[in-house]
Parts: sequence; structure tokens; C-alpha cells
Amino acid sequence: MNAEEFRQRGKEMIDYVADYIENIQERRVFPTVEPGYLHQLIPDHAPEEGEKWEDLFKDIERVIMPGVTHWHHPQFHAYFPTANSYPSICADILSDAIACTGFSWACSPACTELEVVMMDWLAKLLNLPEQFLSGGKGGGVIQGTASESTLVALLAARHKAVHDYRQTHPDVKNDEEVAAKLVAYCSDNAHSSVERAGLLGHVKIMQLPADDKHSLRGDTLQEAINKDKSQGLIPCFVCATLGTTLSCGFDNTKELGTVCEKEGIWMHIDAAYAGSAFICPEYRYLLDGVEHAMSFDFNPHKWLLVNFDCSAMWFKDTSYMVEAFKVEPLYLRHNNTGSVPDFRHWQIPFGRRFRSLKLWFVLRLYGVKALQEYIRKHITLAHEFEALVVKDDRFEITAEVIMGLVCFRIKGPNEPNEKLLKLINEDGRIHLVPSKINDTYFIRFAVCAKSTESKDITYAWSVITELATGIMENNQ
Amino acid sequence: MNAEEFRQRGKEMIDYVADYIENIQERRVFPTVEPGYLHQLIPDHAPEEGEKWEDLFKDIERVIMPGVTHWHHPQFHAYFPTANSYPSICADILSDAIACTGFSWACSPACTELEVVMMDWLAKLLNLPEQFLSGGKGGGVIQGTASESTLVALLAARHKAVHDYRQTHPDVKNDEEVAAKLVAYCSDNAHSSVERAGLLGHVKIMQLPADDKHSLRGDTLQEAINKDKSQGLIPCFVCATLGTTLSCGFDNTKELGTVCEKEGIWMHIDAAYAGSAFICPEYRYLLDGVEHAMSFDFNPHKWLLVNFDCSAMWFKDTSYMVEAFKVEPLYLRHNNTGSVPDFRHWQIPFGRRFRSLKLWFVLRLYGVKALQEYIRKHITLAHEFEALVVKDDRFEITAEVIMGLVCFRIKGPNEPNEKLLKLINEDGRIHLVPSKINDTYFIRFAVCAKSTESKDITYAWSVITELATGIMENNQ
Repeated sequence: MNAEEFRQRGKEMIDYVADYIENIQERRVFPTVEPGYLHQLIPDHAPEEGEKWEDLFKDIERVIMPGVTHWHHPQFHAYFPTANSYPSICADILSDAIACTGFSWACSPACTELEVVMMDWLAKLLNLPEQFLSGGKGGGVIQGTASESTLVALLAARHKAVHDYRQTHPDVKNDEEVAAKLVAYCSDNAHSSVERAGLLGHVKIMQLPADDKHSLRGDTLQEAINKDKSQGLIPCFVCATLGTTLSCGFDNTKELGTVCEKEGIWMHIDAAYAGSAFICPEYRYLLDGVEHAMSFDFNPHKWLLVNFDCSAMWFKDTSYMVEAFKVEPLYLRHNNTGSVPDFRHWQIPFGRRFRSLKLWFVLRLYGVKALQEYIRKHITLAHEFEALVVKDDRFEITAEVIMGLVCFRIKGPNEPNEKLLKLINEDGRIHLVPSKINDTYFIRFAVCAKSTESKDITYAWSVITELATGIMENNQ
Repeated sequence: MNAEEFRQRGKEMIDYVADYIENIQERRVFPTVEPGYLHQLIPDHAPEEGEKWEDLFKDIERVIMPGVTHWHHPQFHAYFPTANSYPSICADILSDAIACTGFSWACSPACTELEVVMMDWLAKLLNLPEQFLSGGKGGGVIQGTASESTLVALLAARHKAVHDYRQTHPDVKNDEEVAAKLVAYCSDNAHSSVERAGLLGHVKIMQLPADDKHSLRGDTLQEAINKDKSQGLIPCFVCATLGTTLSCGFDNTKELGTVCEKEGIWMHIDAAYAGSAFICPEYRYLLDGVEHAMSFDFNPHKWLLVNFDCSAMWFKDTSYMVEAFKVEPLYLRHNNTGSVPDFRHWQIPFGRRFRSLKLWFVLRLYGVKALQEYIRKHITLAHEFEALVVKDDRFEITAEVIMGLVCFRIKGPNEPNEKLLKLINEDGRIHLVPSKINDTYFIRFAVCAKSTESKDITYAWSVITELATGIMENNQ
């Protein structure tokens, strides 16, 4: 494909994409394909000769689309949203064309420097404490996913804890002797990736019970620390969550942070989903306590119209990550090594894309007010759904609705709810996933798509009640 | 930006990108900006109101381009190539629009299934042993970077080693007791990310001396293993490199693999750069020994015209990675959990983009023959450069030219070479980076851009000799 052909085909793709997004509601939100469907539709090896664009292009509808779960369908209410916006797509085209690999400043100064400034823009939008901004010991970086940020924070905390312990215990022979005693904490409502970070980073993670509002509290943490310390363990890390996947619960980061500071423990805050809402002054209170955190992360690629991947992470002091795992061979050194951030040291992967362009395009073309309105609209829609649930006394709300997630269930035992969810997803008009806390099974309704409107909320509720009524009548 | 505006702006971006790539040689390959240049050009906070596209669009030239290192400039000869092709950009636009998050099969069956088939296509192109293909215990997955693949392989190997050791040593009290004795190996010519994987994964990495052809040999490994075992250590992992960054050296994977199999050690092969060449039958011999590897990785995003990020990794047995770090909460389970790959278990991050589309577009629109010709052309250009160096008896070649990298230097001490490289990069007509092996400093000349032609090779050599002659005359 030469440049002339790209001008034609690229524009065809732009039109295809606009058509796809504009008419997405005509598609079934969740596909009906069975495992292995795709390999039956295409050859089992690459072609020797190049194929025609037309043949490839028509295969998008024949091969790909039947197997797509349409995350941007107004009837998609599963998981949490993943962002998708036209400005972000435009920025990614530019990023792809520049196609630099930003492992060091010299690899493309613009790639590093725009990221520094964009992370400061975002930090100011969230009113993060000054220490998280660039210019001092702290700073922000774009990670791929919140799960990587959790792992990065855990590894930095692990390193710090081992280092600190050996400073005060010169008799200890090696790092592993300390590492074997390390222990970290999160709520039993935390995302699976926190537990996994512990497995990957070789630190035992204790899942502590959240309170009846799905919030991990300071006294619970303090108790656990006391008990573990009395058994010779070394507490090193707490991952607090603001907006859990299970129910959009909020850990009490003020209480947890106070304990962590007293005990010299690294607190990381994972606000993957809810973090975007903190750009609205009326939701900023939910972030109180961040001043006690050593690191903080949220995903603009979830709820701030920046396409995946763009997970925004800040450190109060980058040195624990950057210095601990730094390897610097000659071929990577440049004239400004040491005086500018080389972001490969801040992350797990070596290479990195020019992702700050997406943030720049979205923040400038929408502006802060429009982004705030976007967040508020989703939360309003969630409350509209909540009101429908509350009005129907066969159902109950299982967690306070604070953001764009509503957790609900048919009153009584789990089984009808399991049956209802199964029916909903087989029916295929809307798509939802379940959750469970303390053996209570419930259904999560997330406002996800950019195009979701009030009518989609009432539509979803009509589908749910239609199917639920069928179940209840059959049970009578 | 609504759909109509996107149709207009997206197409403007397509034209901008085509113009950028077609006219890239008019730009300076390496920028002249100083650290901090960018924050002086833009506001220090996000705008309240959305801005006009026109204002953003013109800032690409004003703010971004002055700070870009142009990796696709025909005079870019630094590092290794990073890929960039029009078909790949088209695929990424589609991926961005679908914007699914492929952490499980149900998240978008097409996302998982196309990846399975594309990784099989690639495996067949490389003639990988059957065990690496899907359908049995093995299989392939797209990682973000080769550095992540190395870490994933190391973590899987670490888990296997601890598990195996505890099976035969029931007296051992905990995993850390074993972990403290683990040791892994690579060549002292290996990429910095291997050493870093050891730091991140808490496994001591021993860098073993390569031979005078920059190849790590079996007897060197065997000696190190014997010595370490005699000291009570537990060898668990070898990372062999095919195509080192330092000099494009090739470890002897046949010898290393034979040792690893005998000793029950996990061998991972990192062929990040050179791997793409193995699609040419005449270079496939360089991959011999892969049959002894437990895992293998190369980067189509380096030399196979698939835009970053697309690192292709295969396992002979996925269970060591998948089962060891699996966490599976209710909200991630689906009807086919267990019977289909959920790729989040195969990688470090939780979420993942629809990257197999890029492979599909590139493999189909180019076809195998054109990709082979592309590789051959780069290697031919490297030999052209080599011939120019050899003809000039002031210079010497410091490593056999096998792929698209030529390592050369002015004969004699390091200092004139350091001076030459400094002059080259200040001059700005071409861009190169240095390397050093055993205290010998030399310059790396990599054929990188898709558009590089014979005339660019002679041009680069004319710049180098012009500047070198100046140095030599000044020294007389």
C-alpha cells in the first residue's frame, strides 16, 4: 500500500468507523458465536501473495464483527466502561504515524515532554497534592493498565521495605530473608489484579474484610498490621481502592493513609474507574486521603474519553521505582541522561507508544467543562436506573449508587438472580455481568457507552423486568 | 466531535500522516530541542472550554514535530527499527473503534480468536516446532514488548523451579527459601531488559561471557551451572538472544538448549529484532535450537511492518504461566471459562487491545513473499554499507554482518570513535547510537526505515567519512 492508496483506504476506514459507531445499536450487543468460530472462516496460514484491500475489507463484517462484544453499544452495561472518542482515534493515527518508541527522552523528546505536561494537567484537574506534580521528587507517567500500576507500586514498595529493613537490621544476610516476611494488604473487595500483583511480585497479599458499605477501614488495617507484626511479619504495602469493580465501593483512604504513614507503609490508591469523576468538584471529596498515598492511579481510558490504553499513575517520590530497577547500557545513554525522565525506568515494559497525544487531543477538543458534564450525565443515568429499581419492590439495591454503577438483585435467594442474568445475556438485547459479596449474588448495571441516554436506561429496565417477571411467574 | 466532523478531521489526519511519511526526509532526523522545550510552548493547564480543531491541528507542527526523533526517516540508523506501515495504521484505526478490552474470551471472542489464528500463522511462517502452536499445551500470545515476554518467561520459570524443588524437598518450609537460591543466566551481550527482568522478578541473573563472535556457548553455561550448583544454588532460567542489541550477535541456542534440557532449566529465546528474518528460508537456520526452548519471542513491531506494540510470544506449555498466577473472580467468568484462552492470564497487564488486527492486515495485504523481500532488502543494504566500510582501510567491522546491523569503528583507540559519533549526531544529517563490548567502543549502523534505499547508504557513509576525515586531520 503506497501513500496514494493509503489516502484512499485510510479514509474508507474512517468512514467505516464512523458508520460502525453511529449505527452500533443495530447490532447485537453480545455475540452468539461459539468457541472456535473464527478459525473456520479464514485460512490456516498466511497468503504467499498480497491480497486485495477489497477482500480484506469485506472480511471485517464476515469474520470479525460476528465475534465482537460491542462495548460502545448503548445497551452494553457490563464490567466498567472503556473509553472511545473521535478525538482520541485521531490522536492515535498520529501516534501510529510518528511511531517512535519512547523508552528514553532522546527517542523523541516530544513523546516524553508532552507526557510530563499532560500528567501535570491531569493532576491539576484532580487537584492532586503538589508533591505528585513534576518538578520535584514526584511525577506522573502513563502506564498501560491499572493492573501494571498496582504491580509497579508493589515492586517499589517491596524494594523500599527490604532496603529500609536491612538498614536497621545489619545482621540480615540477604534480601530474600526479608522478602519472605513481607506482607501487603487490600480489601476483600479489591480487583483480582491486586491479588495477582502479589503473586507476580512475590509478596503475600492479605485480603481484609470491608465494612458493610464495602469500604476497608483504618481499624481493620491496624488490627491486621498489629497481628502480623506480632508474628514477625513486615507489613510493606496497602492497595486502597476508590470505586471497586465488585460494587463501586470506596475504601476509607483517610483512615488507611493515617495508619500507613504511622507504620511507614506504602499506600497505593487504585481509582481505575472512579478516578475520572474526581475532575468534578462535587466528587473530589472522594479522593480525600490521597495526600497520604505514595502512589495513585486512575484510567482515563475508562471514563475520560481517552481510548485504551492510558492509565495515569503518579508517584510522590519516583526514586523508589526508578532507581531500584535501573539498568543503563551505553546504547541507551544520551546527552541529557539523568536530567530528564527516561520513562522506561518508571514502568514494566521497555518500549512505549506516544500515548500523551490522546490525552492532549481529548483535553483540548472537549475542554474540562464538557468532560465534567460527561461524567455527570453518566452518574445521572445511573441514578435514573436506581430509581427504577427502587420503585419496584421485588428488587433491592445492594450498594450505594455513587458513580455510574448500580448493583441490584431480586430480593431473596441468589438462584433467581443467577437465572435472571443468564436469561438477560441469552436474550441478547442488553449485556450485564454479575458480582458477589459475602455470598450475596447480585447484578451490576454500569452506564458504559458514550451514546447511552435515558431511553436506554428505561429500555434496559424493561428488558430486565420482562425477564424477571417470567422467572417469578414460573416459580409460582 | 461528532461523526460528521470525525469524517472530515479523521481524513485530514490521514492526509497529514501520508504527507508526513512521504516527505519525512525534508525534516532533521534528530531534533535540536533542549530539555523542557515543550512546556514553554503550551499552557500549564487544560482548557475549560473545548478548543477548535484548527488550533490543535496547527500545534502538531508548532509543538510536537520540533521534538520528534524521526524513526522512519531514511537517515535514521539508531537502535533497531520500529515498524510502520499503512496497512497496520488502517488496522489500528479499526481496533481503536471497536475499542474492546480483551481480558477474556467473552470480552470479544473475535479479539481472542483472531490472535490465536494469527499466532499460528506466524508460527508456521517461522516453522516453529508443532508444540508451540495452539491446540495442545502450547500456544502464542501478543505481548506489548519483548521485555515483558522475558519477564513473563522468567516468572513462569521461577514458579516452575520453586514448585519442582519443593516436590523433591518436602522439608523446605516456604517458597522464599527456594527463591533465595534461584539463579538465572544470560550472555553479557544480552539486552538491559534481561537484567531488569531479574531485578523485577527477584531472580539473580548471571551474565556469562560471550565468545569472540558475541555468542554465548553451551560449555560456558554448563561451567556456570556446575559452579553454582556446587554452591547450593538452583539454576532455573536461561535467556538466550538471537540478534543482540549490542552487535546483533547470536547465542548458540542448540548448545544452550541441550544443556538446559539436561539440567531441567527453562530456556527462553529473545529474538526481538532478528526473529522477523526467520520467515526467509535462508535465515531459518539461525533459529535452530528453538526446539529446546520453553518459550520464544520476537517483535513483528520491529522488522515485520506491524506497528508497535506487537511482540509475538509462544510457550511450549502455557500452564506454568497461566495456572501459576491465575485469579478468577465471578465477574470475569463466562460460559466458556476454561475451554478457551483468557489471555489476561498469559501476560502481566489485565486489559489488552485488539492487536491481532494489525497482524492480519499486514500479513494479508503484503503476503509472505513481499515481507521476505522486505527483510532481504534491508540485509542487502547492510551489506552495501559493510562493503563501503571494508573498502576504507581507516575503518574496521567489529561484528559479522548477518542481519540489517553493521558495527564499525575507526581502527585504533576508542576516543576518535566517541568523537566521531558526537559529531555525527550534532551534525544531524544522520542519526546513530554507539555500543561497547569488552571495552571496545564502536558505532552501530542499523537499516531502519521502510524507505531506506542504496542512495541513503552511500549518503550516510559520505557523511561519516566527511566527519571522520575532519577528526583524523585535526589529530595529525
